[in-house]
Amino acid sequence: MEIKSKAHMMKLSSNRMAASSLDMRHGALVAISDSLEANKKEIFAENEKDLKRAEEEGISQAVYKRLKFDEKKLLTVKNGISELMALEDPVGRLLYEKELEEGLVLKRVSCPIGVLGVIFEARPDALVQIATLCIKSGNCAILKGGKETANTNRILFKLIHEAAVKAGLPESALFLAETHSEIDELLSCEGDVDLIIPRGSNAFVRYIMDHTKIPVMGHADGVCHTYVDADADIKKAIPIILDAKTQYTAACNATETLLIHRQAAQKFLPALAKALQDAGVKLRGTKEVYDILKDAPDEKGAGIMDEDIMAEEEFDREYLDLVISIKLVSDVDEAIDHINRFGSHHTDAIITENDETAARFMDMVDSAGVYQNASTRFADGFRYGFGAEVGISTSKIHARGPVGLEGLMTYKYKLYGHGDKLHIVKDFKG
Amino acid sequence: MEIKSKAHMMKLSSNRMAASSLDMRHGALVAISDSLEANKKEIFAENEKDLKRAEEEGISQAVYKRLKFDEKKLLTVKNGISELMALEDPVGRLLYEKELEEGLVLKRVSCPIGVLGVIFEARPDALVQIATLCIKSGNCAILKGGKETANTNRILFKLIHEAAVKAGLPESALFLAETHSEIDELLSCEGDVDLIIPRGSNAFVRYIMDHTKIPVMGHADGVCHTYVDADADIKKAIPIILDAKTQYTAACNATETLLIHRQAAQKFLPALAKALQDAGVKLRGTKEVYDILKDAPDEKGAGIMDEDIMAEEEFDREYLDLVISIKLVSDVDEAIDHINRFGSHHTDAIITENDETAARFMDMVDSAGVYQNASTRFADGFRYGFGAEVGISTSKIHARGPVGLEGLMTYKYKLYGHGDKLHIVKDFKG
Repeated sequence: MEIKSKAHMMKLSSNRMAASSLDMRHGALVAISDSLEANKKEIFAENEKDLKRAEEEGISQAVYKRLKFDEKKLLTVKNGISELMALEDPVGRLLYEKELEEGLVLKRVSCPIGVLGVIFEARPDALVQIATLCIKSGNCAILKGGKETANTNRILFKLIHEAAVKAGLPESALFLAETHSEIDELLSCEGDVDLIIPRGSNAFVRYIMDHTKIPVMGHADGVCHTYVDADADIKKAIPIILDAKTQYTAACNATETLLIHRQAAQKFLPALAKALQDAGVKLRGTKEVYDILKDAPDEKGAGIMDEDIMAEEEFDREYLDLVISIKLVSDVDEAIDHINRFGSHHTDAIITENDETAARFMDMVDSAGVYQNASTRFADGFRYGFGAEVGISTSKIHARGPVGLEGLMTYKYKLYGHGDKLHIVKDFKG
Repeated sequence: MEIKSKAHMMKLSSNRMAASSLDMRHGALVAISDSLEANKKEIFAENEKDLKRAEEEGISQAVYKRLKFDEKKLLTVKNGISELMALEDPVGRLLYEKELEEGLVLKRVSCPIGVLGVIFEARPDALVQIATLCIKSGNCAILKGGKETANTNRILFKLIHEAAVKAGLPESALFLAETHSEIDELLSCEGDVDLIIPRGSNAFVRYIMDHTKIPVMGHADGVCHTYVDADADIKKAIPIILDAKTQYTAACNATETLLIHRQAAQKFLPALAKALQDAGVKLRGTKEVYDILKDAPDEKGAGIMDEDIMAEEEFDREYLDLVISIKLVSDVDEAIDHINRFGSHHTDAIITENDETAARFMDMVDSAGVYQNASTRFADGFRYGFGAEVGISTSKIHARGPVGLEGLMTYKYKLYGHGDKLHIVKDFKG
């Protein structure tokens, strides 16, 4: 029951955290940055333990890179803290003001959500980033990182927590959950935890969403589409699609499905197929696509294998790899319907020079991001100019798309009765 | 399975509803208003059937008034439609704009949430109000009203739906669920229904919240507090408390608990008790309050009955009646802690002339509304100036407090790649 009682204590002290001054919160951020620098040898030593165990377990080079916390990562998180401090205070912003009657002033003012539960992947820098985002936004948080970096997380959290409390923030502002079983306990803390933010694999996020009554901000799938319209400029289409598919295949905003207008397909598909295959992308698609590529005279070798001919219902696949699904459509409306049916409401793009067609696509596709002539990979809080990214949400409630600091905020209404007049509803004229 | 398949059809046509022009939506609203007027005899006749059955079942005068739909109610809903049309279009508002790189323009634009499920009390005027709010905001909706007004709801819905479709809105824009069993079916439509808005009793709203994975906007309890500080002006305190308790006891924003600073209690409690009892309010409270009132020399008869002495854990009671709980506290911090522990995060007030104490209370009380020297009864979308109220939310996610049209909106990011430059992430400098 440790998490449950901890969450309840956090809830009770979350108003002190919410009312903490910007000076105090910034004081904590400076102290954290300094403490990480001053204790870096200890941090690196703990990180070595994690790396050693990971190597013994035979992890890939890519995972090793993510687990590693060295001088370079330290500099990155310190720069992140500086950038976070440069952002405007999200607490106490006046969002609406109205004098309801003489002397009765209503103000809508931003305030922290309260207690967050953040579950994140095995990356020590993520722990620092998330903890400092919570401090800047005046939120209390229960943090749960990946077990592969348990030693690094423990030392980083200890230093962060010490510095925050020393700066005057509540003892219960931050808590590190260390075992996997605590996740289920955290999910049952409705009433005390206000929002869960999960990061990680689709299956994991789906599990979180299915096992809690607490609101969840995040996304499970990222089945993003790029639709090549009849009026597409081929010179743009190929490089944009290559970027959307190959620039970072493991990202949720990578394009997984290509829809092509039949008119465009005739001249364009063989060249595109060749470009994708040259970039190492395996093609999958409908029998119609298979047939066009088989008969394309000039693009030898660019085609679909027999076993990669796709049935309609397979078009919800998220590969997160150098693989792409291809289908032809008769018009933009068929593309819209396909995306709304098979997509994950994340980010979808149209390649067209026809602004009217683009407007239709962008109004009718029900996704957090709808793009004209740009790579779906742009769906990112930093690229959007938010200065910090909390996550990407495919929900339509609260925050949608890449979420900056404001996703960690709510508001309250403050009503001030000034003067000698009695502010009672019985006499209110409106 | 009717609701499930209907919800899925709605989801598929929700983008057409979302992209409908303001002209079309306003055309529908005018047509609805005209049709209700033109068919009022038929509506009143159907309403008579409901009233007759209700009388046979022996309903109270108050409920009878709510069920009745006559010329006066018709005028009210028609005026409501006119006021709704006067509100700014909530769809397509530009909320954020940034040029990410030369020629690449990001816009955050408001758009409808999609498919709503609204479950509301037995009041025919509520059906018209909710249906027209959904049309104005471009949302599709499944409506479920109280069974006591089934006949009136059926004719009202038929007229509304006919007028909306004739004006060009999708056939699937609105659907009326008619049986209670359909509520459970509606609650299982996650993926198709984006938001549930329940109105009704605490137990009912709690049931909804506990039995769906769809986000729910609303509030179960309204345990509102008024705290009388040591620096309170007694001339304000008594009328504000009387208003907060008695002006409309069945409302969620009526004050249920009175907290009084011990210094204020000495001089103030007997007079307040007398005023409340004169207004017909039954007093309940701690032994300490009981003792003060028993010994008060000048206020004969104003006291607490033995059986109304309260234990600490009873202070979460919502009476919705002429009953109030009273407790003394040592300072504002004790009042804050009590409210955060026992309240429902709805609306809480402090009566004080000390602005510093008020600021502390308003920062530290974790409620949607925090008031200084005003009645808690002000928590209302119309009084707040929103022009229309969708409901009141005690959630901190999405909308909080009284919710106007904007609570039915979300946003999407539209990214426009202009010009000949390739907008790909590989080349993006940020």
